[in-house]
Amino acid sequence: MAKKKAAKKATKKTTSAKRADKGHDITATALGRTTDLDALDKKTLQLIESTARRVEVSINKRVLPELKFPIRSLSNVEYDKSVGHFELGKGRKSRALTVNTVRNFAQTLRLMAVSKEMVENDDFATKREAYYVSKNWGDAKFNEQSESDGVMDDIEALASLDGLSREQLRYFPEEHGGSLAGNLVVIDRDPETGAEIRIDCTAFGTGSYSIPHSVEHLEFETDAKFIIAIETGGMFQRLNNHKFWKSASCILIEMGGVPTRATRRFIRRLSDNKKLPVYCFVDCDPYGIANIYRTLKVGSGNAAHINRFFCVPQAQFLGVTPQDIIDFKLEDATHPLQTVDIKRAKDALKNDPFFKSHKEWIKAITALLKMGVRAEQQALAKWGLNFVIEEYLPKKLRDKKSFLP
Amino acid sequence: MAKKKAAKKATKKTTSAKRADKGHDITATALGRTTDLDALDKKTLQLIESTARRVEVSINKRVLPELKFPIRSLSNVEYDKSVGHFELGKGRKSRALTVNTVRNFAQTLRLMAVSKEMVENDDFATKREAYYVSKNWGDAKFNEQSESDGVMDDIEALASLDGLSREQLRYFPEEHGGSLAGNLVVIDRDPETGAEIRIDCTAFGTGSYSIPHSVEHLEFETDAKFIIAIETGGMFQRLNNHKFWKSASCILIEMGGVPTRATRRFIRRLSDNKKLPVYCFVDCDPYGIANIYRTLKVGSGNAAHINRFFCVPQAQFLGVTPQDIIDFKLEDATHPLQTVDIKRAKDALKNDPFFKSHKEWIKAITALLKMGVRAEQQALAKWGLNFVIEEYLPKKLRDKKSFLP
Repeated sequence: MAKKKAAKKATKKTTSAKRADKGHDITATALGRTTDLDALDKKTLQLIESTARRVEVSINKRVLPELKFPIRSLSNVEYDKSVGHFELGKGRKSRALTVNTVRNFAQTLRLMAVSKEMVENDDFATKREAYYVSKNWGDAKFNEQSESDGVMDDIEALASLDGLSREQLRYFPEEHGGSLAGNLVVIDRDPETGAEIRIDCTAFGTGSYSIPHSVEHLEFETDAKFIIAIETGGMFQRLNNHKFWKSASCILIEMGGVPTRATRRFIRRLSDNKKLPVYCFVDCDPYGIANIYRTLKVGSGNAAHINRFFCVPQAQFLGVTPQDIIDFKLEDATHPLQTVDIKRAKDALKNDPFFKSHKEWIKAITALLKMGVRAEQQALAKWGLNFVIEEYLPKKLRDKKSFLP
Repeated sequence: MAKKKAAKKATKKTTSAKRADKGHDITATALGRTTDLDALDKKTLQLIESTARRVEVSINKRVLPELKFPIRSLSNVEYDKSVGHFELGKGRKSRALTVNTVRNFAQTLRLMAVSKEMVENDDFATKREAYYVSKNWGDAKFNEQSESDGVMDDIEALASLDGLSREQLRYFPEEHGGSLAGNLVVIDRDPETGAEIRIDCTAFGTGSYSIPHSVEHLEFETDAKFIIAIETGGMFQRLNNHKFWKSASCILIEMGGVPTRATRRFIRRLSDNKKLPVYCFVDCDPYGIANIYRTLKVGSGNAAHINRFFCVPQAQFLGVTPQDIIDFKLEDATHPLQTVDIKRAKDALKNDPFFKSHKEWIKAITALLKMGVRAEQQALAKWGLNFVIEEYLPKKLRDKKSFLP
């Protein structure tokens, strides 16, 4: 399928061939990648090959083959406060090859084959592209992307049991990550030559670094003391233009609403590798709290099989907190809670195991409902455009006990 | 309002003071900026001061003051094919100071005062921030952002007559621009020191450069032959990861749907300054054609006062064209046109002066309606993930006559 370019072809084929020749014994250096990444690529290939081999063995024995996947639903989710995110339970569903399942069975194997080819060629596909690739599969083609997404989610859930994410299967999200500025050198590699590339995130002027789709291969150097994850582009630009990252010795990351997978994974890896605390700075409303912050910190209920990779359990809620509305006299810069806000807040209190397990959050959300208002991070501009830089953030950062868990 | 930071304060105040002392005779070097930018800053200050002075003179004469703004509606729009975008007509509305208009009158003057302060301090505000700043104005505060937006649109329309955009008034869009990779050095300046910063957009590995909110001060160095403006993040990432910008000697810009103001202005300035053609690569559907491409090229009907800054009249439509669906055998990777698509296409043919004035577009849209399908740029993946790089784009770029106007 993926044809290769003349120049590139030679090297790639050699790499591919070497890999094939040596089975799983290829070395990291042969690929010019980091050891870490290679170990995961090997694991991915092993998973795909062993799955395919089981099917082959069954067929050779004249036994109808069967594929087993974790059940992806809330009924098969386990929550442990000490782990900090929803995890997959032990429930499995089988997909035996029958007249009814033959198309889906073939599609699953073909998508895994595409995955194998992409790992070997160091390529990737978006979910949308994967759907279109199937248009050349004759009867096995997908009619709707929802079909290919479903099959991919099954494969992803299967891979997650081996500690592999969809990105390792080379299916990348459509959206890349947010923007970043601050005291950080990102170490990437040249996609052609594998040579190291050092990206100094203090050197973008009024612009910034845009986080790529896949961040597994990135490494970091930093002397920053913490990461601030910011809801809006406007606030990010203000902090960046005034070089808040320099005066506060930190890294600014713009989430742009609910953070994408790439943004979450980037923050998680950066925070893990460099032992950096993560402070979340969003609007004081049920969306900022229960959608943006909660997704960043513990993941989401209906994607339990990926939370372990994408959540940032070390994240803390810097603000804007309900108490900030009072402490910073923002009452006349608030807006009334809408019906949807109230519903979301009540849902959080009643049904969300994360909020229910933290009395600070129960208190804060209850207070917000009682006040009946919401306050955006821009509301701080009431006291001057740069009040947020000169007063709000320094004061909050001096008193980290005011952060919510 | 905008308090300044201790360290920065000294320099800024000096600059501000110098400016005030010398009136409009300050030199570019005193600010450490480019001549171009300074000329515009001076013009902005002149506009605000002369407007305020007229009001002051009236009041001193005991005459009720009056402000005059261009009428912002389709009834006051002129279209000239040779100009290539909608322009403001000569219609003006007056806002005299009366009991009924006093609040709005005061708000207009205060927003202009904020603008003046921001130019002097080299600061900026988003529209949302500007709304919040008013919360400290007592009776003159805005109750809804729609109010402050309306007043700002009036000021913007007024400024546009002097060739000034909202960005020059220091009101920046909430959203920054898209991502960029390729043969380009962006020359920015350090927001603190004014020192030149050179950003090499070939040096970001799998990541990319994120275009800032305001791009007026940027300069460029490039040996690229053209710019490709791309609809989706997925396609941008594919072309970037495979370094298409290197093999084709070009600059890749991700629009992410309908391009933001910053993206449009960036493309326009880069293309103007470096005489680079702009090729637009979007889905073959009425949204890609009539929303994304048309907005990029000629602007929009209800924002005629800003089109002159933000449209890219030199843009051409590379694809995916309706003819491409046939030429590249994509029929089985298409989807039926939805009702909304059909409506949008028919509207374009019937009401849109841009499409109506180009027979190639009338033919193409008519053909699309007849085929009854739409094709996404990812549909090319039917022939392999990198078919777009190895076959489609090279073939299209060899035959630029196949581009639509």
